[in-house]
Amino acid sequence: MTSPIPKATVRRLPIYLRFLEECGPNTPTVGSEDIARATHGSAVQVRKDLSHVRCSGVRGVGYEVDELRQAIAKALGLGVTRRVALIGAGNLGTALAGYPGFPASGFRICSVYDKNPRRVGMVLNGMAVRHVSRLLQDAVGEPYEIGVIATPAAAAREVADLLVEARVGAILNFAGVTVQVPPEITVRNVDLATEFRILSYYLT
Amino acid sequence: MTSPIPKATVRRLPIYLRFLEECGPNTPTVGSEDIARATHGSAVQVRKDLSHVRCSGVRGVGYEVDELRQAIAKALGLGVTRRVALIGAGNLGTALAGYPGFPASGFRICSVYDKNPRRVGMVLNGMAVRHVSRLLQDAVGEPYEIGVIATPAAAAREVADLLVEARVGAILNFAGVTVQVPPEITVRNVDLATEFRILSYYLT
Repeated sequence: MTSPIPKATVRRLPIYLRFLEECGPNTPTVGSEDIARATHGSAVQVRKDLSHVRCSGVRGVGYEVDELRQAIAKALGLGVTRRVALIGAGNLGTALAGYPGFPASGFRICSVYDKNPRRVGMVLNGMAVRHVSRLLQDAVGEPYEIGVIATPAAAAREVADLLVEARVGAILNFAGVTVQVPPEITVRNVDLATEFRILSYYLT
Repeated sequence: MTSPIPKATVRRLPIYLRFLEECGPNTPTVGSEDIARATHGSAVQVRKDLSHVRCSGVRGVGYEVDELRQAIAKALGLGVTRRVALIGAGNLGTALAGYPGFPASGFRICSVYDKNPRRVGMVLNGMAVRHVSRLLQDAVGEPYEIGVIATPAAAAREVADLLVEARVGAILNFAGVTVQVPPEITVRNVDLATEFRILSYYLT
């Protein structure tokens, strides 16, 4: 086993990857400066981060885009399809269910759950919304690796407990409240108020 | 002027703030360990981050929740209402327009724009969706401080250019492609594929 990649680097690698995926066929190589400029970082940081993936740049030439893309994808454990359960079929859940970037990234939303009877049975992107009471039973047959919480804040903790019981490995939480899970489960919080507050600092 | 707060600290302060806001009246004080546990960080990091806000903890007691909350809010420049323009009135835009956390945080979505004639005129959370061609003109009268890009990827760059022209100070970009803006404008990218890819690393 290789040593773990630092958290902050893991956060930045997908951002570099996105930039590399946007490079057209006319850009066969990129320098750390190009990556830094496009991703609002520093070239020193980029080089340090990329030292954690198996791809060596050539001084004066840079990195081969294709090679670097594959190396980052490998380091992040991409390339296998991950089963995702989405909980919450409101506006945000609907946006997530139809997000075009997921199939290409190897993430497959397999099921959408809600507890609102008016939403259960509704079809989102080809999936019929199921009642959330079915989640555990569904996960026994075909486990979910990632759970996405797209419910109102008031329901988030209950849903997180359910996802822990369903043995997901990771949770993406859009609910805007902190959820507590065992340490072996990774949680990423996407909180809109937090994003705005970060921007606020730079407006002062 | 005080010296600028490091970027990574600015990113974490709103997360601490969210935790503090969730503390009830029965929690008048918190320790750095409490904050660290709730926000998946380390106590050393929390103390280091909080050294940038004007609030001193008391050894063995911790921080006064109310005082710390106010100190972080002040450091982030919160407490004034920020005018926000939202571009894109699809599912994501609809979710954002109705997000209950914004008024409380001091961010006010003043206008929603779209270029799809079927969406223009539609009412979202009390606001009639306007055609995006009106944005510049609207911004002359009442400038927007923050622009939110909630359009498909293909439209994002054009919208970013428009927001730059409208002189926003910051952009929150949900489109999943990088946008280039002058260095004085702060961009935060909320990219769902990126979030999933970060989680992927921890599933390997």
